[in-house]
Amino acid sequence: MNMSVPASEPLLSKSNSVFCCYLFWSSVLILKMLCMSLLTARQRMKTKTFANPEDLRMGRTPEVRFNDANVERMRRAHRNDLENVLPFLLMSLAYVASGPHPLTAKLLLRIGATARLLHTIVYACVPLPQPARILSFFITFGIVGFEAVYVIIRFIKYI
Amino acid sequence: MNMSVPASEPLLSKSNSVFCCYLFWSSVLILKMLCMSLLTARQRMKTKTFANPEDLRMGRTPEVRFNDANVERMRRAHRNDLENVLPFLLMSLAYVASGPHPLTAKLLLRIGATARLLHTIVYACVPLPQPARILSFFITFGIVGFEAVYVIIRFIKYI
Amino acid sequence: MNMSVPASEPLLSKSNSVFCCYLFWSSVLILKMLCMSLLTARQRMKTKTFANPEDLRMGRTPEVRFNDANVERMRRAHRNDLENVLPFLLMSLAYVASGPHPLTAKLLLRIGATARLLHTIVYACVPLPQPARILSFFITFGIVGFEAVYVIIRFIKYI
Repeated sequence: MNMSVPASEPLLSKSNSVFCCYLFWSSVLILKMLCMSLLTARQRMKTKTFANPEDLRMGRTPEVRFNDANVERMRRAHRNDLENVLPFLLMSLAYVASGPHPLTAKLLLRIGATARLLHTIVYACVPLPQPARILSFFITFGIVGFEAVYVIIRFIKYI
Repeated sequence: MNMSVPASEPLLSKSNSVFCCYLFWSSVLILKMLCMSLLTARQRMKTKTFANPEDLRMGRTPEVRFNDANVERMRRAHRNDLENVLPFLLMSLAYVASGPHPLTAKLLLRIGATARLLHTIVYACVPLPQPARILSFFITFGIVGFEAVYVIIRFIKYI
Repeated sequence: MNMSVPASEPLLSKSNSVFCCYLFWSSVLILKMLCMSLLTARQRMKTKTFANPEDLRMGRTPEVRFNDANVERMRRAHRNDLENVLPFLLMSLAYVASGPHPLTAKLLLRIGATARLLHTIVYACVPLPQPARILSFFITFGIVGFEAVYVIIRFIKYI
């Protein structure tokens, strides 16, 4: 294991360029997740599919509906983000705090975040045939797994 | 950009009053999210709507059910928290770590957290006519977006 | 309140053994959450239940399906993780940053994480009769609640 950052220097601070890289890419991914809410809302307005009785007046719709295919696709993409982007952000924070090799860490952050951007494009914006979605999914998935195993091995004595 | 906190001082520590403000409000929001589980459980008991076969004995119910309107409303409110409160907490942590102006940052944390408390009240406790829910939703939504853009601009060179 | 860690020492750093314990257990829980995606995917393949039209070719299935009991059980267990593991990780991070008593904090991290591992086993792997799931659920739930109240009381003046 490469201990390139001395243990005395604070890792979760602006003086650590890996942490700065984390701040940038986590903000990009959270901004992307905000867009999912807007995309879902747009589909709800377009297809007049509202889940709450108090929303019906906005769309001049007689009743609540839950089964529109376009709305449900957005909701699945959004839920996939909850299941993968949030663990990626929490895991990467722990990984950065564990003091990894700076170049490796920055590369993983950049690739992992970019793959999630692509995942949203091929899932929610322009549905592409498989394996486009599976590939982009497993890139970030694999990076989170690698980071977790790295931290577990490094801090195993604190079990 | 106001660099009111010197870069040498640790930002994610108890000596930074902005971080203390973050600790307080993130705890309040997480406590609120815990309540959502209890509210959903109460509705499940009251309407005898259980999703797992092994839960049926608790309610002396013959079969699983998934479509109770009250339970589903709680679940939508809870999912909305997952989609918005968790990104708010992660984004605000990154924002605090980026060293924003202390007064602005504390104001955003207080308003963003309070709006989510109101959102739960008008969604899950006392369903109010729109635009009560939309307004409280977009206050926190806008704050998360502002924080994300702020951090992205400030750390753009670490792309 | 025990102030066993002096305020000057950085709490979110590798020199704090409580934070190291947090890094280890948060990685274990995130690794566990990744497994939920794989378990759901395995159930989808086994029961040929696909939610997206572009996935149908993988299973040589004629149409999308949403109501398979095994897939839905995995999805409920996964959603339960989103609702509880992610708040546990965020809350414990804030709790560690607040400088709790080291022994108490490590004990809470270990018990809270282990209870979530058990919860997944009795929910998704080997469905056990209640109250197995309720007990493991409320152990972590109670710990998150305790941590939240602890931090709220300690930082109440930053409201």
